[in-house]
Amino acid sequence: MADVIDIDNPADPRLDDFRDLNSSDRRPDLPDGKGLVIAEGVLVAQRLLSSRFAPISLLGVDRRLGELADDLRDVDAPFYRTSAEVMAEVVGFHLNRGVLAAAHRAPALDLDDVLTGARTVAVLEGVNDHENIGSMFRNAAGLGVDAVLFGDRCADPLYRRAVRVSMGHVLRVPFARVPEWPHGLQLLRDRGFQLISLTPNPKEPTLAEAMTGDRVALLLGAEGPGLSEYTMRRTDVRARIPMAPGTDSLNVATAAAMAFYERVRLG
Amino acid sequence: MADVIDIDNPADPRLDDFRDLNSSDRRPDLPDGKGLVIAEGVLVAQRLLSSRFAPISLLGVDRRLGELADDLRDVDAPFYRTSAEVMAEVVGFHLNRGVLAAAHRAPALDLDDVLTGARTVAVLEGVNDHENIGSMFRNAAGLGVDAVLFGDRCADPLYRRAVRVSMGHVLRVPFARVPEWPHGLQLLRDRGFQLISLTPNPKEPTLAEAMTGDRVALLLGAEGPGLSEYTMRRTDVRARIPMAPGTDSLNVATAAAMAFYERVRLG
Repeated sequence: MADVIDIDNPADPRLDDFRDLNSSDRRPDLPDGKGLVIAEGVLVAQRLLSSRFAPISLLGVDRRLGELADDLRDVDAPFYRTSAEVMAEVVGFHLNRGVLAAAHRAPALDLDDVLTGARTVAVLEGVNDHENIGSMFRNAAGLGVDAVLFGDRCADPLYRRAVRVSMGHVLRVPFARVPEWPHGLQLLRDRGFQLISLTPNPKEPTLAEAMTGDRVALLLGAEGPGLSEYTMRRTDVRARIPMAPGTDSLNVATAAAMAFYERVRLG
Repeated sequence: MADVIDIDNPADPRLDDFRDLNSSDRRPDLPDGKGLVIAEGVLVAQRLLSSRFAPISLLGVDRRLGELADDLRDVDAPFYRTSAEVMAEVVGFHLNRGVLAAAHRAPALDLDDVLTGARTVAVLEGVNDHENIGSMFRNAAGLGVDAVLFGDRCADPLYRRAVRVSMGHVLRVPFARVPEWPHGLQLLRDRGFQLISLTPNPKEPTLAEAMTGDRVALLLGAEGPGLSEYTMRRTDVRARIPMAPGTDSLNVATAAAMAFYERVRLG
């Protein structure tokens, strides 16, 4: 069981991992950033505690400690118990979820391991928005996508905002980096994945027409620019996300959800 | 052409419509709230200027004025030109989009008018989050949904955050209130709409199986509670949103997008 330690002084150095959470320079937003993984709220903290990310400590109010009692049974890290006021002073803003957990970044997963047994993977290029990354992981978990792979210029999936928006699913859905982007896509093709570039281009076949592989990799680019032509040329087929004429492209996480849905539908 | 008026003094009362935008009591979040409609950024301001909402004034930097020149040609409202610093002081936070437009709320649309010619409508109950409301309108526009209807306990679609997240589509996609919720659903049935309740219940038929009507109303409840049983009983069929076992329900705007997508797919 986690040791419960009462702390009343917001300046206590044991709380430093939770200090000034909004100060972005303390949470470097880089693929190799040194920032800790921060989970906010009971549900996400539970997911952190049952993940491959090793907890360092938790900070929260007594009520949340009670809600997490079962989850903390086999946890070594301390639970710093305090008041909502002290929490707000430490993190720098009012946090109405009442509990935070901090963990070390786990070592990156090996692409080969992530692909073993996977039938459906999402592959992202240039998705540089933490909310979109978080939403994609949540949608991936909800629609049975086995892994998320990163090409170039993507936001850090372990950044606090991405963790929160994903409802903690960035801590559960495996992810890995595709090396030497986009050439590394060949590693997926070698394993029998059909590589599908998603595009709003109305001239391309629909998702339902294009998605024929037993193993499928769905490539998604950022809202606006989409996938680079250079990357699309390295995929097997381009498939259209349906869209009403004259509107903007859909949010990239929404487009991804529709592709994931189509995959579930086609079985 | 809009009159261009230079203002250097942030205390100028002509800027009062843009003052302290974060102060929620000035933008009452109620279906019958008296708050103004505020558009942020060039794209959303353009959509406001071509909508049924009558602009009162715009506030922005010179560069944005240039970008909006065509859109302002037939506009009567003044454009208050100022610096980014004065803008920040007036609105109370740094606004990196550089232009705001304020408009009066237009009279609510008549449900009958909104339904005329519509083939697909979304009907919301208890969707009380502005971001979700905004996302749904964006998805509705992107996937050819003709209108959004509101049952009880929904957030105000004209609140600033909903306007922004929708990319201005709350100003374009018609919306109306269903009277005497949920009994008023009969008005849709009388017009030949098939009423479909969306649910995560794995025992229900899939969307593709259930969606058979020529005119379709897709009913969506809030994340978590979903539609009330009382409301679902007044619909023709319940249909399942696919979901991986053991995960949380999908975000309601994402679930809506999948239903809209299925409608496009089935034609």
